[in-house]
Amino acid sequence: MKEINQYIEENKARFLEELFGLIRIPSISSLSKHRPDMDKAAEYWVKILKEAGVDRAEIFETAGNPVVFAEKIIDAAKPTVLVYAHMDVMPVDPLDQWSTDPFEPVIMDGKIWARGADDDKGQSFMHAKAFELMVRTNSLPCNVKFIIEGEEEVGSPNLGTFCLEHKDLLKADIILVSDTGMIASDIPSITVGLRGLAYWQVEVTGPNRDLHSGLFGGAVANPVTELCKMISGITDADHRITIPGFYDDVMDVSDKERAMLAQAPFNEAVYRSSLGLKSLQGEMGYSTMERTGIRPSFDVCGIWGGYTGEGAKTILPSKAFAKISSRLVPNQEHHKIAELFKTYFESVASESVKVEVTSLHGGPGYVCPIDLPAYRAAEAAYEDVFGRKPVPVRSGGSIPIIAAFEEILGIKTILMGFGLESDAIHSPNENFALVNFYNGISSIVRFYHHFTK
Amino acid sequence: MKEINQYIEENKARFLEELFGLIRIPSISSLSKHRPDMDKAAEYWVKILKEAGVDRAEIFETAGNPVVFAEKIIDAAKPTVLVYAHMDVMPVDPLDQWSTDPFEPVIMDGKIWARGADDDKGQSFMHAKAFELMVRTNSLPCNVKFIIEGEEEVGSPNLGTFCLEHKDLLKADIILVSDTGMIASDIPSITVGLRGLAYWQVEVTGPNRDLHSGLFGGAVANPVTELCKMISGITDADHRITIPGFYDDVMDVSDKERAMLAQAPFNEAVYRSSLGLKSLQGEMGYSTMERTGIRPSFDVCGIWGGYTGEGAKTILPSKAFAKISSRLVPNQEHHKIAELFKTYFESVASESVKVEVTSLHGGPGYVCPIDLPAYRAAEAAYEDVFGRKPVPVRSGGSIPIIAAFEEILGIKTILMGFGLESDAIHSPNENFALVNFYNGISSIVRFYHHFTK
Repeated sequence: MKEINQYIEENKARFLEELFGLIRIPSISSLSKHRPDMDKAAEYWVKILKEAGVDRAEIFETAGNPVVFAEKIIDAAKPTVLVYAHMDVMPVDPLDQWSTDPFEPVIMDGKIWARGADDDKGQSFMHAKAFELMVRTNSLPCNVKFIIEGEEEVGSPNLGTFCLEHKDLLKADIILVSDTGMIASDIPSITVGLRGLAYWQVEVTGPNRDLHSGLFGGAVANPVTELCKMISGITDADHRITIPGFYDDVMDVSDKERAMLAQAPFNEAVYRSSLGLKSLQGEMGYSTMERTGIRPSFDVCGIWGGYTGEGAKTILPSKAFAKISSRLVPNQEHHKIAELFKTYFESVASESVKVEVTSLHGGPGYVCPIDLPAYRAAEAAYEDVFGRKPVPVRSGGSIPIIAAFEEILGIKTILMGFGLESDAIHSPNENFALVNFYNGISSIVRFYHHFTK
Repeated sequence: MKEINQYIEENKARFLEELFGLIRIPSISSLSKHRPDMDKAAEYWVKILKEAGVDRAEIFETAGNPVVFAEKIIDAAKPTVLVYAHMDVMPVDPLDQWSTDPFEPVIMDGKIWARGADDDKGQSFMHAKAFELMVRTNSLPCNVKFIIEGEEEVGSPNLGTFCLEHKDLLKADIILVSDTGMIASDIPSITVGLRGLAYWQVEVTGPNRDLHSGLFGGAVANPVTELCKMISGITDADHRITIPGFYDDVMDVSDKERAMLAQAPFNEAVYRSSLGLKSLQGEMGYSTMERTGIRPSFDVCGIWGGYTGEGAKTILPSKAFAKISSRLVPNQEHHKIAELFKTYFESVASESVKVEVTSLHGGPGYVCPIDLPAYRAAEAAYEDVFGRKPVPVRSGGSIPIIAAFEEILGIKTILMGFGLESDAIHSPNENFALVNFYNGISSIVRFYHHFTK
């Protein structure tokens, strides 16, 4: 531990400088105009990993954004760790809610503030630096491979194919990912469950043009109102999802596991006030942590239609749109859910409007057993650094590719996340605590030690 | 009639040239950046009316946009006609749906294409030219006053005060307005009823920032979904408005008048197909014409919230907004309705969100008795020009100031409109048929003749 701390202490400034170089590349995968930034980010990763000591680092083209693969094989007989991370980030709007430039990282209050500071540039960088530390201090105990993709935030549409086509290249004993969070800087936790995702865009068309709301209002269906009715019908008064068949495959969680999950510290008053809310709302019969951990959810991520400018324009709009997503739990199959929603949404549409549902992306959920040796190694690593055993938790977030790794490559993943809820990932003013960044590097190095012991 | 036709024929080209000069001024009253265009439009009107032969024309400043007043008093003992019109227009977005530049009028297929071609620049210009015709041909039979305002499209917030402060200036026997439509170019009609209007903007706030939909989805109320529920609850399965007290003051229309209104020609198949709709939708128990003529309506004019860009962003939005309007009928009082809505909307909001309702503008409805001498004069004028008696109809549109004229000035209004439903007022590709423009001028001249006979 002493050696680890010393190396980090001596190289802190350089670590941050290198990370900031990556953050400054605005690699937003959902906006096609940022496609060139994806190439820049890939080239940057190749440079970083080569400097850190890999034998081989190269960029693979896909049907979408590039994938970086790198490896250092010290002995074919030793185990291999495959590090997965993503170099793409979420969009940054609403820009006016950022206190600083999202792509010009600054350090304030012991945190890095920028888009990607946590998700996933900051977290992925810990692996590059942990690897560098082990190489430079001659303590790397096994083989390491890196796979860094550029489409995680849009559902990894091409990584599954890449895995299928490069099964040998990606052979490993365990996959290590830092793209999740922990309970608090002093309460470590490891995510053992992830929700899956289905995401749609819907378009509702009424009249063939915007109409004068006086001349036509009352006689012609309003597509915004119709969309609102369709959306509000998706959940009932108990906040359960009404789509027929939606819960059919949901894996029931035993009372014993629910009791274990309930042990994670949770202060509702603090949670509420940090969100500025008077009261919480969710599925009847489940706690807040269960609602995001073991139960599926349904959200409108965006809605628009008609006149949205200044003042009053009296129209009956021609069209209304929404972006809608559902978080899924094991064993919900995202393709099946995508179809159920589409069928349902089209079936409840009024005769007076046309409805088009487009599936934008999706992925299955994931569960990691806590008796897996690699999980125990991670547990021991956190204990070395934080002085206490990490709590196993189920996260509400999704990393669609994790379940695909298990299915295609047959490899389990350990989610060693070091983010905090206050990191505001996907939101304005994303940040990442420096203490978590450094403790993350230490914990990763310790994982390699315990895993190969 | 011969003299009238000859004058119009000889001056057609100049009439259009002058009208186009007015249309080219982008006087959009709901967008504050167009305030200077309001002054330009006012100055243009002063010039046009002076050239047409008024004794006096001046611009009055108000708390909002300017008002143009002009008059020609030939004999204090003779009756006075007050012409009311508006020089402001609606916004032009979505701009990509226009086939031509909205502020560069063109003539195609016998129509003028531009924002304001009908509403109300084209229609108001007929009065200037009818007046000019009578002055130049020495046939003006009475006194004429003009009042042209610049805030009709935002609910005339300052014209009521102007009327209160200038009651003497505005003294007249009848008010003449061309800001409505007729059934077809060969089926004249006169609007004898107008709906009132109430217009709100609502803001629903959930969490204090956009949240990651995976980490929070299911545990925190989504403001878009909540807004959708609130909007969809406003109408029931019979498309009746559920706000308590909403229908209390609605004036019942007798079976006899309903039978008379049903005589106006209406082809549902043509109506539907012109709007691209498979079926119509509206309040149970009423015909399409009744739904827009004698019944109040409720429409969402615009909605927005969360991520509306390209691709998929997985957020639970912080805020959702909507612009909502209701068309009112006699005797619904718009201030009362504004309050009823606000109270209702706030009362149905979930505890998990904050709701703010802002009243943007409103105005009462209007009814003109068909036995009024001025109505009979208008009827005769249409008959002279179109060869058939006009049908009295109730329009779904609103001209909030018309009811205020009656209340403040004690003067009834005749709505001599020459627009067609296909004119697409308030929409992209607004247009005005030249034949209606010329027939409108003739009809107005004939009105003066019959009214003073």
